[in-house]
Amino acid sequence: MTPASRPATLQTIGEFGLIRELQKYCQTLHADVIQGIGDDAAILRTSNTQALIASTDLAIEGVHFDFAFESFKDVGHRIAVANISDIAAMGGTPKFLLVAMAVPPSYAVKDLRALYQGFKKPCQAHGISLVGGDTSASKAGLFLSLTILGEVPPKQVLTRQGAKVGDKVYVTGTLGDSKAGLQILQRQAKHKTPKAPQPYEMFLKKRHLRPTPRVAIGQHLASHHLAHSAIDVSDGLSGDIHHLCEASQVGVELWASHIPLSSQCQAYTASLRHNPIDFALAGGEDYELLFTIAPRHQSKVFDLSKSLRTQMTCIGEIKPKSHGLRLKLEGGTSRNMTRQSYDHFSVTGIQS
Amino acid sequence: MTPASRPATLQTIGEFGLIRELQKYCQTLHADVIQGIGDDAAILRTSNTQALIASTDLAIEGVHFDFAFESFKDVGHRIAVANISDIAAMGGTPKFLLVAMAVPPSYAVKDLRALYQGFKKPCQAHGISLVGGDTSASKAGLFLSLTILGEVPPKQVLTRQGAKVGDKVYVTGTLGDSKAGLQILQRQAKHKTPKAPQPYEMFLKKRHLRPTPRVAIGQHLASHHLAHSAIDVSDGLSGDIHHLCEASQVGVELWASHIPLSSQCQAYTASLRHNPIDFALAGGEDYELLFTIAPRHQSKVFDLSKSLRTQMTCIGEIKPKSHGLRLKLEGGTSRNMTRQSYDHFSVTGIQS
Repeated sequence: MTPASRPATLQTIGEFGLIRELQKYCQTLHADVIQGIGDDAAILRTSNTQALIASTDLAIEGVHFDFAFESFKDVGHRIAVANISDIAAMGGTPKFLLVAMAVPPSYAVKDLRALYQGFKKPCQAHGISLVGGDTSASKAGLFLSLTILGEVPPKQVLTRQGAKVGDKVYVTGTLGDSKAGLQILQRQAKHKTPKAPQPYEMFLKKRHLRPTPRVAIGQHLASHHLAHSAIDVSDGLSGDIHHLCEASQVGVELWASHIPLSSQCQAYTASLRHNPIDFALAGGEDYELLFTIAPRHQSKVFDLSKSLRTQMTCIGEIKPKSHGLRLKLEGGTSRNMTRQSYDHFSVTGIQS
Repeated sequence: MTPASRPATLQTIGEFGLIRELQKYCQTLHADVIQGIGDDAAILRTSNTQALIASTDLAIEGVHFDFAFESFKDVGHRIAVANISDIAAMGGTPKFLLVAMAVPPSYAVKDLRALYQGFKKPCQAHGISLVGGDTSASKAGLFLSLTILGEVPPKQVLTRQGAKVGDKVYVTGTLGDSKAGLQILQRQAKHKTPKAPQPYEMFLKKRHLRPTPRVAIGQHLASHHLAHSAIDVSDGLSGDIHHLCEASQVGVELWASHIPLSSQCQAYTASLRHNPIDFALAGGEDYELLFTIAPRHQSKVFDLSKSLRTQMTCIGEIKPKSHGLRLKLEGGTSRNMTRQSYDHFSVTGIQS
């Protein structure tokens, strides 16, 4: 390539050139953004009657994402959804996003544009303004830190803490798809000449790359005081039900046969002779909502499921703490449910 | 060492063990923290009458800090101040801090405790609650992303935009000390057996490691409508005056002989036969406030300086944009002031 046709990198445009590029993705005209990117801090209007909710999420190349099998746009989209999902789990309305990013100077400007296009898609869908951030050089891959700010009426907020003995445990959508999609993507990146694609692969890959944050469902559960507690399934069902039970000081019985699985995940795991339930229990990044409700509200959840056209499945019941966390298997036996979430610092990757 | 006496690392305590450790530093009893760390997001009470201000800052091992010459506690303190200073520059009250952190699994738990002690010191001094964050493994050093949230009455907010032709340009404290301190620290880390320490060294090192965010000054300038514009000096005077003039669409004449320099910085630069003005122009991380006021308010700034016991120096005057950004030297000649800020992506490190 001649120098003129070489794609611009951060080295060629510099830090302030990059900031100018990224400002194009920052909507400063949103009524609640008094001032967006470009000063020491963003200035934001919040509502009189609502509490602010704030969450920050890291995403690191080689740990949380891998450009061997996903594009910059994919990564931006997925990471933004992970962040939005934290607000959905509290029953809140996501409003503002800040992006801090450390980038190797050799990275192409067009790739970072694609990353921001990825952020923008789910933000636009949910009325979220990108209002600021920070940029720096990185010596080892792309580091992203997203902070999302949302609002919720304080008396409606959903937390992990309110689960009550006797509550029914529900989950939206299907579980395990994201882990299956990730495995397929990883395998295809390794073996450059894949076998003929299976019909289920496209669906599962998309479930990993384009997850859906359950914002409307969280808001409805919160505003109608339907749920006693909620969490988003980001660490796998076994990990997240542990978080919820620990915060609420309760036990749980989950019913393996009720855990919602897509036909595609079942077909994929069958091809590997794996149990799809293990994908649901240990698979992260589904971003479905796990919530508990009083049994008398079950018909309301059924109506909500119909009106929002989203599957909501009762998968178990909250028990006293002494019961522990147990999984009832088909045939009536049950076993202790160990936490199978990913532990970033453990040698095995599994949390003890 | 026997295995029992080996200091605990993240590998030994795991991700959730780390989170439990760090929760000790998160104050959940602050009246405005409805719920702090431990759920999907923090829930925060904001004021009816104030706008929210939000800023995020990256700090990366080997780029922004170096454990060869500063401790984990030093780094925590300095990075928190950098973040708090962004709120000070807007005239706001800092309130909440979120910390996202990627750490190599081999790092000792006690070092991360020290890092959080470093965060805690300036946070306590300014009534800021640490309310949440995220943790992950890193393959290449410590990566920190801090997000600070503050409040400001919308009609009082200070930005970079309001400088008017004829305004006097002021700066708090002295400039260049932090850069001098950093150089001394770097040199001493390189030459393990240093020469006898010079009397100015302790002061300059402390100015780098323990900067002071000018929160009270920013608030006073804002609430008394004294300043037309403000910015914190984090990129060096030459870089930050560029930011301010660009945002305000004005030019400036700065007076080299008026730029406030500590006797210690002068002694240090004299020992190197360097011009201390260059340290003020190009040195980052002073975290002093640079602001512009109408000339009629000069006596009020003088009073404020006395009551807050903080040096405030008039260093120049805002000019029309056509004047450009010029530095008047002793003897009456003047030169164009080029931006000498650090550019993370430039090969030379200097922004063009």
